This record gives sequence, structure tokens and C-alpha cells, in this order.
Amino acid sequence: MAARRSAPRAEPARLRLDVDERRRRLVALGLDLFSSRAYDDVSIDELAEAAGISKGLLYHYFPTKKDFYVAIVRAAAEQLLERTGRATAGEPMARLRAGLDEYLHHVGAHRRAYTALLRSGVGSDAEVAGVVDETRAALCARLVEGIPTRGALVPVALRGWIGFVEATTLEWLDGRREAAPDVLRELFVDVLVCAIESAARRS
Amino acid sequence: MAARRSAPRAEPARLRLDVDERRRRLVALGLDLFSSRAYDDVSIDELAEAAGISKGLLYHYFPTKKDFYVAIVRAAAEQLLERTGRATAGEPMARLRAGLDEYLHHVGAHRRAYTALLRSGVGSDAEVAGVVDETRAALCARLVEGIPTRGALVPVALRGWIGFVEATTLEWLDGRREAAPDVLRELFVDVLVCAIESAARRS
Repeated sequence: MAARRSAPRAEPARLRLDVDERRRRLVALGLDLFSSRAYDDVSIDELAEAAGISKGLLYHYFPTKKDFYVAIVRAAAEQLLERTGRATAGEPMARLRAGLDEYLHHVGAHRRAYTALLRSGVGSDAEVAGVVDETRAALCARLVEGIPTRGALVPVALRGWIGFVEATTLEWLDGRREAAPDVLRELFVDVLVCAIESAARRS
Repeated sequence: MAARRSAPRAEPARLRLDVDERRRRLVALGLDLFSSRAYDDVSIDELAEAAGISKGLLYHYFPTKKDFYVAIVRAAAEQLLERTGRATAGEPMARLRAGLDEYLHHVGAHRRAYTALLRSGVGSDAEVAGVVDETRAALCARLVEGIPTRGALVPVALRGWIGFVEATTLEWLDGRREAAPDVLRELFVDVLVCAIESAARRS
């Protein structure tokens, strides 16, 4: 407090930076922890211990475990969107395929977290559900960029297609169905083209 | 107790019947309540009051609110399967269309319950999730009965298609997308045919 008072104008910016940087590091740590384990399996005690800070300090950055989790889900969503958006050149269909490959690769590398997010009760929390819905919409828009999607029913078909991709991916990640990622990707492409065509025709 | 002891063989059967009948009536009441309201919105107190029994007696039939809810979800699943299985005659594609019509009609009439079941945290409870998964599989098997579904990848595509139908239906029930039920149904049929064909080709 004494130090802060002695330099009132310079300190707040530096302090804020520290806070942001610490939050960023905590989120990175959380991404790492939650990539292999489900929300309920990781306790605040364990998170604090892994971060090398007290539980009290962790609560200072994130008032609740859910706040922390929401920040992590947002970060994970950004990672996924960043990865699936890498292929910006080429034909729409080639970019769609590249995006789907990245998607399958990314969720495969974060199997537990992705499965838990889409299946767990936390996923039904309004805030988490909001992030998931926004991510779905952004991912879908990115994947179909450049593909003609005119017709009132087409957004319905696109939402359905995301449901198709998610349901299939969850089964595949569970190991309940064996399929090579490129075979799954081609199934997704076929169904997308068909769903858009059908919806456009029936709009 | 005295009456029970005086007729030891006759009483248990009658008592059991009463218990089954009371459970059945409670489930019917629950189906009614949960058809328009979500799990978290209905308290045990309210359920007991609506049933005209004490909370203690309700707990006698269903030890927890979740047990009660699971019984209701099972009953709802049976209703849905019974409705969608009514069309047993005719061509496979005609039966598929009739089944999808029944499905859309049924979930439309139980909008809140269906939406809450597939979205809420309760849906992620292992027991409820088990009932939902079994119902999905049974519904899907019934809908595609008689349609050729050979190929290792076809079950994956069918699971994906259920995801397509559910995602689309949830948006439609939310009122976020306007579409006539028969247009939705035809979209479902188109996507199913395409998904099965693609999966069979790529198996």
C-alpha cells in the first residue's frame, strides 16, 4: 500500500499488466489441465497447487471455479477457431476440408475436455452454453465461407450439420466407432453439401 | 400390521398392486408437469402437493427427485417410441416419414420437457443419459427399419443423423427458426439418405 501511494500514476498500469499476465498464465495452466480431465475431476485446491499460488489468490483472479472454467472454455474456443481458420487460401471446398481436418485433429488432442464440455452439466450452464453456441456459429461460418448458402432453411440445415459433426465426433472420440479422420471428414463434406442443397431447394 | 398378519398371503399382492398403481399415477402426473416445465423449475413440494400426498410419501415411492425424474424420462421415452412406431405398414420410406411426423408432433407437444432434457444438466446425469442414449438408438433403429444400412461407417452416419435431427429440432422448438414440420421432415429424409449413401460408399 505504501509503495502504491508513493507512485500513484505509474503503478496501476503495471499492476494491471501483472494481473492480466497472471490471469493469462492461469488460463494456460487450466487449458492444460482440462485438456485431459473433466471439470468435476479437477478441484480448486489442485488448480491452486499446480499454479503454485494460494487458493485465496486463485479466487482473487477468478471468484469461482466456474468463472475460471468459463475463461478456459473461451480460450479453448479461440484456439479452435484460430486453428480451423488457418487455411485462408484456396477454393471454398478445399478450405472446408482443411478446416475439418484441423477440427478433428484439435478435438482429438483435447479429447477429454471436448467430450466433457459437450456432455457435462457444466455445458448446460448458461454462460458456458453461450460460449459454446457462439463458437459453433463462428466455426460453422468459417467452414462454409465461400460456399453458396442462400435460402431461408439453410441456416437450419447448417445448425443440423453441426449437430451431425458433433454427434459423430463424440462417438469417434469415445472410441465407440473406428474411422480414419479423413473418412469422417469426407462424410461431413458429403452431408454438408447434401443438407445445403436440400435446404436451398425446400426454402 | 395387524390386518397384514391376519391375511399374510393375500395382502402382499394387493399392496404391491397399489404401490405400482400409485407409482404409475405419480409418473403420469410428473409427465404432465414436466411436459411444460423444466426439471429445476418443479420442486418436490410442488409435486407432492399436485399429487395430493405428503412429501414423505412421495419419497417413499421415489427416494430422490432424480429417481422420480428418471422414471418420468423412461415413461416419456416409451411414449415417444410407441408413437413413432405406430406406422408399421407400408414402404420403409413411407414409414420413416410417418415416424418423423410423429416425432416432430410429439416433441412439439412436449417442448419444454424435450428441450430441457437434451440441454439441461440433468441430461448429463449418467442414468438419464443412459435412457436418452437407449431411446435414441431405439428410435433410430425404428425409423430406418427396412432401409438398407450396410457398411461399417453407416452406424456412425446414423448417429450423426440423430445429431442433425436433434440440433435442428431444438432450434425449431426454440422458435429461433421457422419451418413447417413437413419441410423439416423432408430435410431429415434427404440428409438421412445422403448420409447412409455416403457412409456405405466410404465403408
